[in-house]
Amino acid sequence: MTAIETPAPFDAALLDALMERAGIDVLLANSKHNVAYLLGGYRFFFFDYMDAIGTSRYLPMVLYFRGDVEATRYIGNALEAYEREHGRFWMAEVETTTWGTLDAVARAVAAIEARGLQAPRIGIEAAFLPADAWGALAGRFGAGSLVDALFPLERLRARKSARELAILREASEKMIDAMLAVIEAHGAGTTTRELAEALRLEETRRGLTFEYCLVTSGAGFNRAPSDQVWRAGEIASLDSGGNLGGYIGDLCRMAILGEPDPELIDLLGFVEEVQQAARRPIRPGAPGAAVVDGGLAPLLRSPHRGYTTCVAHGMGLVSHEAPRLTSAGPVPYEGVDAEAPLEAGLVLSIETTMHHPRRGFIKLEDTIAVTRDGFEAFGDRGRGWNRGAV
Amino acid sequence: MTAIETPAPFDAALLDALMERAGIDVLLANSKHNVAYLLGGYRFFFFDYMDAIGTSRYLPMVLYFRGDVEATRYIGNALEAYEREHGRFWMAEVETTTWGTLDAVARAVAAIEARGLQAPRIGIEAAFLPADAWGALAGRFGAGSLVDALFPLERLRARKSARELAILREASEKMIDAMLAVIEAHGAGTTTRELAEALRLEETRRGLTFEYCLVTSGAGFNRAPSDQVWRAGEIASLDSGGNLGGYIGDLCRMAILGEPDPELIDLLGFVEEVQQAARRPIRPGAPGAAVVDGGLAPLLRSPHRGYTTCVAHGMGLVSHEAPRLTSAGPVPYEGVDAEAPLEAGLVLSIETTMHHPRRGFIKLEDTIAVTRDGFEAFGDRGRGWNRGAV
Repeated sequence: MTAIETPAPFDAALLDALMERAGIDVLLANSKHNVAYLLGGYRFFFFDYMDAIGTSRYLPMVLYFRGDVEATRYIGNALEAYEREHGRFWMAEVETTTWGTLDAVARAVAAIEARGLQAPRIGIEAAFLPADAWGALAGRFGAGSLVDALFPLERLRARKSARELAILREASEKMIDAMLAVIEAHGAGTTTRELAEALRLEETRRGLTFEYCLVTSGAGFNRAPSDQVWRAGEIASLDSGGNLGGYIGDLCRMAILGEPDPELIDLLGFVEEVQQAARRPIRPGAPGAAVVDGGLAPLLRSPHRGYTTCVAHGMGLVSHEAPRLTSAGPVPYEGVDAEAPLEAGLVLSIETTMHHPRRGFIKLEDTIAVTRDGFEAFGDRGRGWNRGAV
Repeated sequence: MTAIETPAPFDAALLDALMERAGIDVLLANSKHNVAYLLGGYRFFFFDYMDAIGTSRYLPMVLYFRGDVEATRYIGNALEAYEREHGRFWMAEVETTTWGTLDAVARAVAAIEARGLQAPRIGIEAAFLPADAWGALAGRFGAGSLVDALFPLERLRARKSARELAILREASEKMIDAMLAVIEAHGAGTTTRELAEALRLEETRRGLTFEYCLVTSGAGFNRAPSDQVWRAGEIASLDSGGNLGGYIGDLCRMAILGEPDPELIDLLGFVEEVQQAARRPIRPGAPGAAVVDGGLAPLLRSPHRGYTTCVAHGMGLVSHEAPRLTSAGPVPYEGVDAEAPLEAGLVLSIETTMHHPRRGFIKLEDTIAVTRDGFEAFGDRGRGWNRGAV
């Protein structure tokens, strides 16, 4: 990690600027990913999978006061006293006392009151803050004082540090190792549910937390694991997310039982061509839209354009995050980064997906980090037809 | 499953009665555990671990209109179209269109509006419904129309069906198998982090979703996995949660490297005595308080009473749920079931925990189902000093 002037494991000056621009005096983060980011990668193991307990739920909160990083406060569950004893928190102000939403938010209210701010504007995560906790904040400070902080938090996380890039690289490499191990070990008669379960185990063996496996076999497009059987001669796709230290390895690779015929070789070769065309423009300073435009160039002049898509989006702690390169989607600032220049440290997921009407679901998904002089592809192996056990 | 008059995989008549008592016309469930319960055990694999995606999050919703089970509606993520195609949903009204909180809640608002109810009282999960979704509901129906539905939902889930009991039994048995495998395979020099990671893998191998492992070694009380080394002659505790089909296996067992001395044999023997005394009164009709009272009888006359506790609570989809047998805790209805008679189908977790000032953390946690004529203990093995590899 490069030397920073504050004790925080993130760029506090950038956060201050983003909060200033959004008119936020106090940031109250409570989503697992943003809490983990502000805590330097820490995520409490006891509530890693579940949230519910007793009559409420786990609600960790990081309070950040603009311009005063030293006052940052963590409000955690009572069991996190163990982690505090282990010195896992960078900030001085840590409370490990809570069991639910209302006791947690009461501590946050008290800490904000203690600052003595006049009519503070509080940045919250409106899609993650529970309604009852929101009600307690609104009751004390007024609903009008609560503004959504998703945008500044996402911008804060967009450029990854060397530490984050190393984790994302390792997650991607392990994901590919796990996928190739599963493909090599399975043959005709395997169900897609068995493929997904085998991948769960292979990811776990490698230290990843398995998140999901989208899987197809044969000519079908249904990607939910099921009793569908992978038969001799058929293709299969594995698209899985696995988590390492909070960061997501998310790639898609193809498999086949037997040898691909010329048409299958051409089809995956075309998907590969689109993927390569999309990554080719990637370097600092290139406009974000150049990525998808690069992929669309061969795509739009091909006979496959009617059933093939190419998308690109940022990834990191969340599987779809900044930069937002394409304008599809219902959210107000989708596509906001299309005209902005790419920067070193951004990490992109590029996906070319073909729903071929006769041959089935053919897809590659890659993870690409923008570097100082171009890009680096993480886990960039197994991109052809990987042979299953025969 | 016993024959029921409705297509619902839960007791719709009981839910109607609970809603009536709580003054709720429409139930809007969105927590993963209650959605899974109302969907008969279904939980969407893609968002099993994570929630965040894009600029919002996964927000599944089940809408239940009191007295009209046929009108039950599921509002799911667009990718759940795959599961719909697989016939995974019992209700006729299924929408798989959403990507975030606001589009999901907009669909719920439209469905409630379409019922044409006058001033409907809507039951929500206030600790789980995101603030922005709450805002959309409150904006349309008025904040006063939104009441918390945690209590009726918890009561609905309290008595487990044969299907649920079978899952909880299997989860507990697999958990014990995993723990014993880890203990047998590890010896002096293992860190508590390595023990937890080994347990994660053993649970995964057995089809469980690992949730957490609280672990101690030596005479310490810190239960977070760490670099702490398990040394020859020392004790260790493993307290883990692992999930099977949404239901939690949660047990605690003890281990030792070498042979326990007479004092250790006595201490764990005493913990076992308290556990047995707590389960002895369990049968339908016995008051809920009899469980903890049973454990407290030997505990309060022992020299260990100053550093030993005995608690009992319901468990199932949530690790602490109804019945609520003890009055400790900050929530309004904690202890509400202490005077109520136990019923067949309730599942209890009983925990006796000793923080011994010299010898360390000694605990047993058991899972006990109330049966027609008494009780059944799930995974009731490995209750003594399990020997690690020497």
